[in-house]
Amino acid sequence: MELDETTMGIIGIVAGILILSGWVPQIARGYKTKRLNDVSSYLMILIFAGAALWLVYGIALDDVYIMGVNIAAMVLTMIVLSMKLKYEKVAQTTSE
Amino acid sequence: MELDETTMGIIGIVAGILILSGWVPQIARGYKTKRLNDVSSYLMILIFAGAALWLVYGIALDDVYIMGVNIAAMVLTMIVLSMKLKYEKVAQTTSE
Repeated sequence: MELDETTMGIIGIVAGILILSGWVPQIARGYKTKRLNDVSSYLMILIFAGAALWLVYGIALDDVYIMGVNIAAMVLTMIVLSMKLKYEKVAQTTSE
Repeated sequence: MELDETTMGIIGIVAGILILSGWVPQIARGYKTKRLNDVSSYLMILIFAGAALWLVYGIALDDVYIMGVNIAAMVLTMIVLSMKLKYEKVAQTTSE
């Protein structure tokens, strides 16, 4: 398959936007239900760790696009994880 | 920051493994609790769509590594989504 550079650039950017924007409904759902019990903490931690490594990769390449996507991924996963831990703490306190 | 090519390759591969392996505890958690209510379907669908685009990108570049990571991501998110839909259907049937 042959694609020109512009098409490739658009595909890469749209793919990144799709994947990052997936976290928005996840955050919205958690915020609405105040429950993130079924979401594994390890999913957030491992995605965060992988994104942190790819950030190093982006810094080494001096590629602003790779840096941006991975900083966004780190922020989004940490938002979900901190919401999850907060809601579980609240649930525990109220059930005592 | 200057890193040699080998180090860069290792960082990229380890980052990919970390992010993909995050889905394993998520699948295990869902399998154990038979509940994925708190996981947003849109998260799975949007990650799947983004990975599908990056697969096109990988095919165009003839890059086996990009293809592999994104096929794995597509499979893993579809496993989680199909588990979620199955458990919700079961929960609905039993509550009727």
